[in-house]
Amino acid sequence: MNYPGGIKHKIKNDKTTTINTNYGNRGMTLENELNSSNDYYRLIDKAIIYKKPTPIKITNVDYPSRDKAVIKEAYFTVPSTTDYNGIYKGKYIDFEAKETKSTTNFTLRNIHPHQIEHLKSIEKHGGIAFIIVRFTILNETYLMPINKLETFLDNNNRKSIPIDYFREKCYLIKDNLKPTVDYLKIIDKLMEDKNG
Amino acid sequence: MNYPGGIKHKIKNDKTTTINTNYGNRGMTLENELNSSNDYYRLIDKAIIYKKPTPIKITNVDYPSRDKAVIKEAYFTVPSTTDYNGIYKGKYIDFEAKETKSTTNFTLRNIHPHQIEHLKSIEKHGGIAFIIVRFTILNETYLMPINKLETFLDNNNRKSIPIDYFREKCYLIKDNLKPTVDYLKIIDKLMEDKNG
Repeated sequence: MNYPGGIKHKIKNDKTTTINTNYGNRGMTLENELNSSNDYYRLIDKAIIYKKPTPIKITNVDYPSRDKAVIKEAYFTVPSTTDYNGIYKGKYIDFEAKETKSTTNFTLRNIHPHQIEHLKSIEKHGGIAFIIVRFTILNETYLMPINKLETFLDNNNRKSIPIDYFREKCYLIKDNLKPTVDYLKIIDKLMEDKNG
Repeated sequence: MNYPGGIKHKIKNDKTTTINTNYGNRGMTLENELNSSNDYYRLIDKAIIYKKPTPIKITNVDYPSRDKAVIKEAYFTVPSTTDYNGIYKGKYIDFEAKETKSTTNFTLRNIHPHQIEHLKSIEKHGGIAFIIVRFTILNETYLMPINKLETFLDNNNRKSIPIDYFREKCYLIKDNLKPTVDYLKIIDKLMEDKNG
């Protein structure tokens, strides 16, 4: 049996700290961990993947001096695409990452329908498209290829994906030291499965 | 002989308007034209390429109501990467686009050194990396593959690239109706040259 982040993780946490026991890797957010993992991948020249800047609509900019611009009013806008993209082994990589505090399911409202369409389109064009979902309380992080998400959506009318679907059909990203979220290990596996 | 945007363009402009004769395509910026070209490529499902949002450091956010966030103070930051990336024919595409009002050369100060490093790295990883430079007064737009930029930098100690280098060593992106900046036509040619 596989208890991702269960028994194994408890032991690990006992060793380091008793605070935030079940709240994931040392209290870091998934975004921070992915950014540092991507930094590491770039450092060892394994992949070039970045988080895109947050899309913002700027409505007022002030120029207190010639070379300095201060944005005085701006609004967050709905992103057209996903948060992360880049290149790995010559392939275009594209994904969205989300955290949930739920211990039972992942609400689909967390991902915009046009982001799902975008990921489907990327796969059609020969890219590698997926989502990464972390159940923070359980400290379980999964990689779900876009085709698994499509299969779920085609066969279910639910507004959320139960954790068992992740556990049974998706790929657990095991806790790792460096990089913290070694999601390219899963991509290697998916590439192997495709080629062999 | 090749007079990019010269004789041919004068005739075209006489037909349409006498204002802004030599200021490029109907006063649209290169960025706007690239965005609409990318929209068109997506519409016909040819490629999925987007401009990334402008990177900004947010220092103060106000929440006037529960669901609304207003950014009250933020600053433009130096981008880590380039402005545009995406996928075309299964390949990862990455580029930066710049306009200049000069009629004689393109100042290298316009491109950050780490952007050049980024593009070199992308090519090394199997992606297609280039810059697009528009000489707005001349209405000449060129695609310069990153290896041509490297060759220039390796052999010159200059702080700018003369227009002749673009005219002789790079690829003119001809004015087009739809999309306005049909740069993927040049990429097709580069892909052919590589394969054949």
